[in-house]
Amino acid sequence: MKSLILFAAITIFSFTETISFKAQAQNPEKQSQPNIILFMVDDMGWQDTSVPFYKETTELNKKYHTPNMERLAKMGVKFTQAYATSVCTPSRVSLQTGMNAARHKVTNWTAYNENQPTDEPYPGIKFPSWNYNGLSPVPDTPNTVYATPIAEILRENGYYTIHVGKSHMASYPTLGADPRNLGYDLNIAGNAVGGPKSYLGTENFGNQVKGGYTPAAIPGLELYHGKDVFLSEALTLEAKKALDNARFLQKPFYLYMAHYAVHAQYKPDMRFYQKYLDEGLGKQEAEYAALLQGMDKSLGDLMDYLEKYNLAKNTIIMFMSDNGGLTLVPPRGGKAFTHNLPLKSGKGSTYEGGIREPMMVYWPGVTKANSTNNQTIIIEDFFPTILEMADIKNYKTVQKIDGKSFAPYLRNNALRDSSRALIWHFPNNWQEGSQRSKEYKIVSETEGIGPSSAIRLGDWKLIYFYGLRKTELYDLKNDIGEHHNLVTEFPKKAMELTQLLNKKLEEEKAQFPTDKTTGKILKPIFKP
Amino acid sequence: MKSLILFAAITIFSFTETISFKAQAQNPEKQSQPNIILFMVDDMGWQDTSVPFYKETTELNKKYHTPNMERLAKMGVKFTQAYATSVCTPSRVSLQTGMNAARHKVTNWTAYNENQPTDEPYPGIKFPSWNYNGLSPVPDTPNTVYATPIAEILRENGYYTIHVGKSHMASYPTLGADPRNLGYDLNIAGNAVGGPKSYLGTENFGNQVKGGYTPAAIPGLELYHGKDVFLSEALTLEAKKALDNARFLQKPFYLYMAHYAVHAQYKPDMRFYQKYLDEGLGKQEAEYAALLQGMDKSLGDLMDYLEKYNLAKNTIIMFMSDNGGLTLVPPRGGKAFTHNLPLKSGKGSTYEGGIREPMMVYWPGVTKANSTNNQTIIIEDFFPTILEMADIKNYKTVQKIDGKSFAPYLRNNALRDSSRALIWHFPNNWQEGSQRSKEYKIVSETEGIGPSSAIRLGDWKLIYFYGLRKTELYDLKNDIGEHHNLVTEFPKKAMELTQLLNKKLEEEKAQFPTDKTTGKILKPIFKP
Repeated sequence: MKSLILFAAITIFSFTETISFKAQAQNPEKQSQPNIILFMVDDMGWQDTSVPFYKETTELNKKYHTPNMERLAKMGVKFTQAYATSVCTPSRVSLQTGMNAARHKVTNWTAYNENQPTDEPYPGIKFPSWNYNGLSPVPDTPNTVYATPIAEILRENGYYTIHVGKSHMASYPTLGADPRNLGYDLNIAGNAVGGPKSYLGTENFGNQVKGGYTPAAIPGLELYHGKDVFLSEALTLEAKKALDNARFLQKPFYLYMAHYAVHAQYKPDMRFYQKYLDEGLGKQEAEYAALLQGMDKSLGDLMDYLEKYNLAKNTIIMFMSDNGGLTLVPPRGGKAFTHNLPLKSGKGSTYEGGIREPMMVYWPGVTKANSTNNQTIIIEDFFPTILEMADIKNYKTVQKIDGKSFAPYLRNNALRDSSRALIWHFPNNWQEGSQRSKEYKIVSETEGIGPSSAIRLGDWKLIYFYGLRKTELYDLKNDIGEHHNLVTEFPKKAMELTQLLNKKLEEEKAQFPTDKTTGKILKPIFKP
Repeated sequence: MKSLILFAAITIFSFTETISFKAQAQNPEKQSQPNIILFMVDDMGWQDTSVPFYKETTELNKKYHTPNMERLAKMGVKFTQAYATSVCTPSRVSLQTGMNAARHKVTNWTAYNENQPTDEPYPGIKFPSWNYNGLSPVPDTPNTVYATPIAEILRENGYYTIHVGKSHMASYPTLGADPRNLGYDLNIAGNAVGGPKSYLGTENFGNQVKGGYTPAAIPGLELYHGKDVFLSEALTLEAKKALDNARFLQKPFYLYMAHYAVHAQYKPDMRFYQKYLDEGLGKQEAEYAALLQGMDKSLGDLMDYLEKYNLAKNTIIMFMSDNGGLTLVPPRGGKAFTHNLPLKSGKGSTYEGGIREPMMVYWPGVTKANSTNNQTIIIEDFFPTILEMADIKNYKTVQKIDGKSFAPYLRNNALRDSSRALIWHFPNNWQEGSQRSKEYKIVSETEGIGPSSAIRLGDWKLIYFYGLRKTELYDLKNDIGEHHNLVTEFPKKAMELTQLLNKKLEEEKAQFPTDKTTGKILKPIFKP
């Protein structure tokens, strides 16, 4: 017996080790924080909806059926002049960090694997060493921007943070490739993938049956493999489970609902496809329209969920897209560069078709039902806006925030500010697919796809194309289609905007392309 | 326009790439396959329940309250002579592979990190190079056993396979450390961890708040971090979600519900703790009893789920533990080596207290309600039994199966076979905690904790202790407590069993310990 007692005395240390934890704080004072859903669509153009964002209902508005977007538009406010960047990753990094692309320098889309700049070669141009590895939650990862992501701040202030769908904020295996390293408590189906290999559960969303990594395959939705479930539906079902978690936790939630839709490559969503064929659309455009409506159904399903569980009155819904609609043919049907009309061009271009987005906000008790707002806002503005909505003040970030909260325009729909200049910076060239032709490059030049910077002030918009050494000036109020370059008529305005653009780029420590022949750094210039 | 058409022709290849998949088969002929729940408890002793497994209700049966085990016992059959191995990993590998431990050679428990044999030194003994890295789904991983796991066969035959809780079948980072590599469609909270760092959600189940690996922390239950949710409850809530998945899939399911309970280190499950204090138990034993009852509630919750969704009539429930009850003091309260009475010793020992398990089966329409069966069965028998229950025939495995289906005893409760010899092989020494004392080793010798092999045939049980070079023979029918060594009285029987044991060990290509001084391989011998 004595031996047992001695044994007891000796081994007790290995069993009674205790752990001291600070439980993840749920600040009781913050219990009134609203839930927030940011419903983010991929590659959706300004006109890809039955909700009219132009002053009149267009042919495109008539082509697409998005009844749940109409429902949201009736509940809240639509912004007719909301902007993103012209390609995916820069917008997403701006959203997560509040930084303008010139500052964060993830100026083009990121490849799945690290250290692979994605620029399409452009004659005479050498691209800068931009942050082609994306966003990083830690410093000192080469070619990444180190920043405090919005979800981390929300989580630290009591939110349950949910990432659903496309992430595409950094390259594998840097830390930012996993949303859980960017402040998200839960990640469903997001990683370094940009465009989905397949939308079809019957095709395992592009995954090989037997394990291993398949390029561009969607991760983490094994439940639906082999099932006739479209990707947008699978993400919605999983998002609702995540909201169940939030209800269990009795925490406010931030749901970043980032659909892979409506990115290529298109597959028919059979719930809606036949209808569009019947309406006379060709195979490709019917697939695209069905993809849009499947995304729209997801929005409706989430709104239904909020109503079912009595959450609607305390849940903000924001709707946004990350860049303009794709207008290459194929994969789109019809005539190239017509898919965002009346806007010019589309994804990858600095013209309006590449950067203007369908945006809506419903903030219960704050936004006015069925209202419209033409204040200009830009993607990085979501960062301070969301934190303001969440009543989070005095937060600290390692980065300087360029975005401005648009909450004031939500609170007062009549408020306007035309004194703020918005800028776009793209010292890159968009690459889509691996095949390019000389003919395409010629078209790209006329369609604004190439290295460029731009500024908008009031109704004026100035674009500088580095490759062409060309300045264009438009009056968007009277020329939304950017048909009439006014540099000759308004040289003083062009000069003023060129200077302001340079000043802002300098402030944000922008990187510039260089002239391959002379080695000289190229900056926006204007010679009347 | 011509240029656009050419562009179209060139780029079409990058967008129309198609994928050819074979959807995961759900064989329509197998639609009548039953659902199967294997409810596996960790370190639960034969008497750790209010269900009497001995011929009479014991003091221990009165001490613990497991109403849902009583409910299951009333529905089905309890096996009073069901066996496992004396420590965790060997049992789990036998279960997944159908192999006896002598054959699979994962004869002791596996450490979290690879290449770390866990044997406690034993005087004069050199241990063999056993498979201390555990089970592997691929060949050629050093010190692993390559085998076809049961979940893989079930999955390939239409089952949705769910792993919940403790896995502990291989060391990190070998493939077997992740249940998803062992045939499980879904893994909740299982990896290379054996004993849980903490049962408390308020302690994040042992995880540090800020990422990174924490030794013995439970993975994947972040939802419950900081919440007052006990681990057994969190696993149950997640298991029910997994069953929701199965209903969505309309597939039969195999749920391997492997609780971390009732492994040390103990923490009070506040749902049941106070009651046991009130009944006069000390802190440690009240914690243990509450841990048992929390596990029991999980069983009840799953049974309720089956009834709610009308699945009870087509769902088999099997209840099992992986080794005998822990009887070291501390962490247990009371007197050491008394926690499995009337059985001798406990976890880590080859005496009955280390290997006899509380086992029950409910097979709707097959097992007889409220029945008892004293047929001997052993852990590897679950493999062929489950596959027979699932109506899967002619399956192929890379390993030879030692287990025998006990389905015949479920179909006919009167059937008995006393001609089959069961063997245990443990050329190791159990290590629990990192502190050991000389006194403990002396006790261990008298309690059967040390390198040994054993055989049971009919009511006879023979044990050979390699370190002590000692043979013991017991008549379990008349001496369940293994108090009377009968070698002197029955030398012929001892010789016969020693020979049979050696024959079986040879058949299974067992590894043996060696004499450290002479370098001679030690095998069970008996000299009358």
